Amino acid sequence: MAYLSGFHAIEELIRSGRPCGPLLISKAGPRARAIESLAIDRKIPIQRTGQSELNRLVPGNRGIALEIGDGRFSSNELSIENFIADLPEDEDAIVVILDGITDPHNFGAIIRTSDQFGVKLLMHPNSRAARDSETVSRTSAGANAWLPIASVPNLVRAVEQLKAAGFWVYGADIEGQAAHKKDLKGRIALIMGSEGSGIARLLREACDAMVRIPSSGQIDSLNVSVATGVLLYEICRQRGFK
Amino acid sequence: MAYLSGFHAIEELIRSGRPCGPLLISKAGPRARAIESLAIDRKIPIQRTGQSELNRLVPGNRGIALEIGDGRFSSNELSIENFIADLPEDEDAIVVILDGITDPHNFGAIIRTSDQFGVKLLMHPNSRAARDSETVSRTSAGANAWLPIASVPNLVRAVEQLKAAGFWVYGADIEGQAAHKKDLKGRIALIMGSEGSGIARLLREACDAMVRIPSSGQIDSLNVSVATGVLLYEICRQRGFK
Repeated sequence: MAYLSGFHAIEELIRSGRPCGPLLISKAGPRARAIESLAIDRKIPIQRTGQSELNRLVPGNRGIALEIGDGRFSSNELSIENFIADLPEDEDAIVVILDGITDPHNFGAIIRTSDQFGVKLLMHPNSRAARDSETVSRTSAGANAWLPIASVPNLVRAVEQLKAAGFWVYGADIEGQAAHKKDLKGRIALIMGSEGSGIARLLREACDAMVRIPSSGQIDSLNVSVATGVLLYEICRQRGFK
Repeated sequence: MAYLSGFHAIEELIRSGRPCGPLLISKAGPRARAIESLAIDRKIPIQRTGQSELNRLVPGNRGIALEIGDGRFSSNELSIENFIADLPEDEDAIVVILDGITDPHNFGAIIRTSDQFGVKLLMHPNSRAARDSETVSRTSAGANAWLPIASVPNLVRAVEQLKAAGFWVYGADIEGQAAHKKDLKGRIALIMGSEGSGIARLLREACDAMVRIPSSGQIDSLNVSVATGVLLYEICRQRGFK
């Protein structure tokens, strides 16, 4: 069984209306009381527990924890087929694809940023996901509770499905074209590779083009979550932040 | 005494030519051997140690550590007075000012990003610095070894000094003007506040204007290191990445 223990993450998940609970409470500080009120309001079951019992279930808790079931993202998992089927014809969209990003801090930060820039779907391979749901939830500031996420068995095949649905596919790469000189309007899928090894060869070959962030520093590249934020900003800027 | 133990961070600091050493080695894996060669090449003293001794000095090491003295950033600390004095007349520059960013991951990521976007000086209050030099070094990918950093006693006073030297001072704030609609050329100082409490009131009042990143998500704001990257990107884009 998995639990959230961050105050913010718990509040956001309850507010999202997605299935969760019960809420376990051992200490009644002001923040816990506020969350309890919210949970009552949203009809989430509440369960009083002893502190030692809560510590056993959720080490490092601050007196409160929310049960979120076994699946990491089961509540907002979306298949690529359903995503495409639900997308209104002629509607633009941004999809972010993560290839080999296993660090939960980076994964969470990218979820948070994707939410901010109106990304419609985050896709990652189901074989190499970031496993630490608590860290992902915390660093995403709770956005992992609602941002649609597709865990797919084969990224190359999923990219071909996106292309068939009218998406232009761009990979982030230091050898690519400067992002601000490229037209990034329309349906866009942005692939981010891991900092160490970049985007896998077959996936790279499936891209329409590679894009880079012009920079002048002494080291190779930006942190992958910062780079994702910058490229999403550029994509949104080009479409007038609509 | 402080030590670096990340392979990348050690290499970057040695390459930077700044004073450091000796290099302590307990295990001779391929990566350690490569670093040893580099150290010999750069005339850094090398010291063989037992693993238990190295573990005592640097818990969590991978068989190698580099001594970096007592100061966190002593090798590239720069006073605001010297920074201004050294700045060629009519030369543009970007300064990043951190108000209350104490998380070492964010601090390190901002150093790395600042280096990539050609920031000339990073400034932070000496009373509330991020203290974990190993984490800062690792997350900055070694850029903390060379990016000039000013630790100042009073940020408001330092901002006034920058303004007297021709800098426009912008604070990042969700209520500000959209960054891409603002002219951000010339000498620019960008102030980033902590995610919780933003920029302190007196410092905010010292700003020429506040700027924001337009976004559309359900949560309040971007992670501070991602937001710094996006705003620096926008500043550099406006000046043609020169």
